[in-house]
Amino acid sequence: MSTPNDSDLDRDAVELHRTHQGKIEVTLRADLETKRDLSLAYSPGVAAACRAIEGDPAALRSLSVAGRSVAVVTDGSAVLGLGNIGPAAAMPVMEGKAALFRRFAGLDSWPICLNVNSPGELIDAVRAIAPGFAGINLEDIAAPECFDVEDALQDLGIPVMHDDQHGTAIVLLAALIGAAELAGKRLQDMTVVVAGAGAAGTAIAKLLRCISFSDLVCEPVKDVIVCDSKGALHKNRKGLIREKRELLAYTNRSGREGTIQEVLEGADVFIGVSRGGLLSADDVKRMADRPILFPMANPTPEIDPKEALDAGALVVGTGRSDYPNQVNNVLAFPGVFRGAIDAGATSITPEMKLAAARALAEFVGTPTPERVLPGPFEEGVAEAVAAAVRGAWESR
Amino acid sequence: MSTPNDSDLDRDAVELHRTHQGKIEVTLRADLETKRDLSLAYSPGVAAACRAIEGDPAALRSLSVAGRSVAVVTDGSAVLGLGNIGPAAAMPVMEGKAALFRRFAGLDSWPICLNVNSPGELIDAVRAIAPGFAGINLEDIAAPECFDVEDALQDLGIPVMHDDQHGTAIVLLAALIGAAELAGKRLQDMTVVVAGAGAAGTAIAKLLRCISFSDLVCEPVKDVIVCDSKGALHKNRKGLIREKRELLAYTNRSGREGTIQEVLEGADVFIGVSRGGLLSADDVKRMADRPILFPMANPTPEIDPKEALDAGALVVGTGRSDYPNQVNNVLAFPGVFRGAIDAGATSITPEMKLAAARALAEFVGTPTPERVLPGPFEEGVAEAVAAAVRGAWESR
Repeated sequence: MSTPNDSDLDRDAVELHRTHQGKIEVTLRADLETKRDLSLAYSPGVAAACRAIEGDPAALRSLSVAGRSVAVVTDGSAVLGLGNIGPAAAMPVMEGKAALFRRFAGLDSWPICLNVNSPGELIDAVRAIAPGFAGINLEDIAAPECFDVEDALQDLGIPVMHDDQHGTAIVLLAALIGAAELAGKRLQDMTVVVAGAGAAGTAIAKLLRCISFSDLVCEPVKDVIVCDSKGALHKNRKGLIREKRELLAYTNRSGREGTIQEVLEGADVFIGVSRGGLLSADDVKRMADRPILFPMANPTPEIDPKEALDAGALVVGTGRSDYPNQVNNVLAFPGVFRGAIDAGATSITPEMKLAAARALAEFVGTPTPERVLPGPFEEGVAEAVAAAVRGAWESR
Repeated sequence: MSTPNDSDLDRDAVELHRTHQGKIEVTLRADLETKRDLSLAYSPGVAAACRAIEGDPAALRSLSVAGRSVAVVTDGSAVLGLGNIGPAAAMPVMEGKAALFRRFAGLDSWPICLNVNSPGELIDAVRAIAPGFAGINLEDIAAPECFDVEDALQDLGIPVMHDDQHGTAIVLLAALIGAAELAGKRLQDMTVVVAGAGAAGTAIAKLLRCISFSDLVCEPVKDVIVCDSKGALHKNRKGLIREKRELLAYTNRSGREGTIQEVLEGADVFIGVSRGGLLSADDVKRMADRPILFPMANPTPEIDPKEALDAGALVVGTGRSDYPNQVNNVLAFPGVFRGAIDAGATSITPEMKLAAARALAEFVGTPTPERVLPGPFEEGVAEAVAAAVRGAWESR
C-alpha cells in the first residue's frame, strides 16, 4: 500500500508550510487609513459597539467576527494517525482545518491548540474562550475522553461538534445511502460491522442506529456490530470500559461473538476506522451478496480497494484521495457549521447530522460504484449541506 | 468638554461594525483549489509538518501562523472607560486591537475574550491557549488583578504584555522625553505627579523610576508621586492595598503628603490617568516653571488642554485624537510585539520598553509644543519601534 511519491509529498508539504509560514492570515474588513477610520473601528467609537452588545447580547453576532468564527480546538492527544503529539505539533492540522472552513464555507476560523493535562482542563479552556466564537470544532482529541468533553460542552449556547466523530459519521452515512441504493438493499435490512471502537467508530454506530434522535425521521440499520482489537463487542465480554459498554445498548442486537473475521460472516457492510491490512479477500467473500466496504484507515486501508473489488465488493470507499469514493470530512464540517451558525443553532442535533448526510447523498444524484460521494471541489456541496442543516434546525 | 459629534460617531461606529460584521477576517495564504493543494495543506501531507514540529519544537514558528500571531486577551473586567462589561461586550475592542496589529505591524492577531471568574482562571486559560501564539497582548483587565496576572504569565516563553500598563507607559515616556527637551530640563531633575494608581499609573511610575532594569541604561526621574482618589500615596497612609504599598518602594522619595493639589506644588510634570475635571488653572500655576501636563483621562481629560496652556503649560498631551500630542498606545504595541517576535524574545523587558520610548522620541526629530509624539499614521513608526525593541533584546 506504500505510494512511491509519499516522500515527495512530505517534502512539498513542509516546503509549502515554510514558504507561507502556515496557511492562514488575518486581514481587515474595514479601512484603517484615516483618523476617522481609527476612531470608528477603535477608540473612542468602538465603545458604542461595546455598549450595544452590553445592552443586547445577541448583537455580539451582528457586530463582530464572533458571529462567523469557528474555533478549531485540540489538545493534540490524537492527531491524524500520529497519536498524542501535543498541542504545538498539532498546529498544522488545526490551521489547515481553519483554512478549509474559509475555503469551503466562508467562515472565519482560528486554530486553538490547548496545553492541558486532563479532560477537565480541556473543558474549562473551551468554556473560557467560547464568548468570542460562533462555533467550536473539536478536533483530534483522544477517545474515550472525547465523548465526555463533547457532552460537557453542549450547554455553551453555540454549536460544539467533535468532527472526528460526527464529520466522519455524516460522510460515511451519505456514502452508505448511495451504496445501499446500488446494492438494492434498504438500510434497515443491513448488518454493518465496524472495526474500531474509538471516536469515529462510536459516532458511526450511533448515527446508523439513530441514537439520540428526538423523533422518527431516522430509520436505523438492522444491526451494527462494533469490533475493537480483540473482536466483537458483546454482552459477555469482560473488562470493557464504560464507553464500550454503552455502545452495547444499541449495537450487536444479534449477540454475535468472535473475531472480526467471524462476525463479518453474512454482513452487508464493513466500515473500518482501525488499521491497515486488517482484512483479506477471503473476508470479503464471507460477507453477504454485493458487499459494501469502507476501509478508511489512513494511510493504509484495512484492505486494498482493488483486492476488495476483485473479491466481489460492489462499492469500496476509503479515506484516501487517490481512490474513488473518498470519505472526506471536508464534505461535511464546513456546511454543517455554516448551516448551524446561519440558523442560530445552539447545538448540532442528530437530525442535523442526518440531514447533512442525506443532502450529500442527494447531491450525488444517481450513484455509481465509483461515485457514492461528491468530490471535495464540486461546486455547491457545502451550500447544499448548510441548507439542509439549517432546515433541520428550523423545523425541529 | 463634550463634543457635539459624539452621537454621530457612535452611530457611525455601530454602523461600521454592523456593515462588516466586525473588522477582521481569516484569509488563505496558500491555494486550496486542487486535490494536490488539499493534500499538501491538509491530510495527508500536513502530517509531515506535524512531525517536523514534533521533532523540533522551534519549527512551530516557521511552519505555522503561530510564528506571527498575537492573542489579544481580555476578561472584559475593565474595558475602555466602560468598566466590567464582560468578555462578550469587550469583543469590539479586542477585534479592533487585532485589526491594529495587522494594519500597523503586519502581525496576525486574534481576539480572545475569556469567560472566567478569577485571576487564577484567567491565568489558566492563557496558559492553555499559549501554544498557538507568538505573543500575548493582555488588554482591559482590571487593576490590581492585572499585575499578578501579567507576572504569572512571564514563564510562557513568549512575550506577554499588558498593554494598558506598558503601552501607555512607553508612549508617555516618549512624549515626556520630547517635552523635557523643550523645557530644558533633564528627566533626572524632574518631579512627576501621577493621578491614578491603577494599571497605567503604576506602569508609568515604574518605567519613569527605572524599576526592574537589569543594568543602568535607564536614568530615573528624581521623584514620582502617585495619587489615588484620596491624595498622595505615602508611607503614613493607612489601609493601602499591597499593590499601592509596593509602589512606595520607589515613589514619593520626598515623603509628600496631602491632596493632589498640594503635591502638585512645584512639580514639573502632571500625568493623569484618572478622571475628567480633576485640575483647574490654579493647579497648573502652582507647578514649577514650564509645566508639562498629560491629562489622559478619556473622553474628558483631567484639565482642558486650552485651559492648561492659558495657565502657562509648556506642553499638553491627552488621550484624544482631536488635540495635539495624543498619547495613543497604537504608537507602541504593534512595534513592540513585532520587534519582540522578530527577535525571538521570550519576554518584553524593561530595556525593550525604554528602547521603544526612545525610538518614538527620536522619530519625532525636533519636538515642538504641539508635536512631542508622531501621529499614528506616520510611515515607519512601528518599524522604528520594532527595530529598537529587537535591538534591546539582542544586546541584553
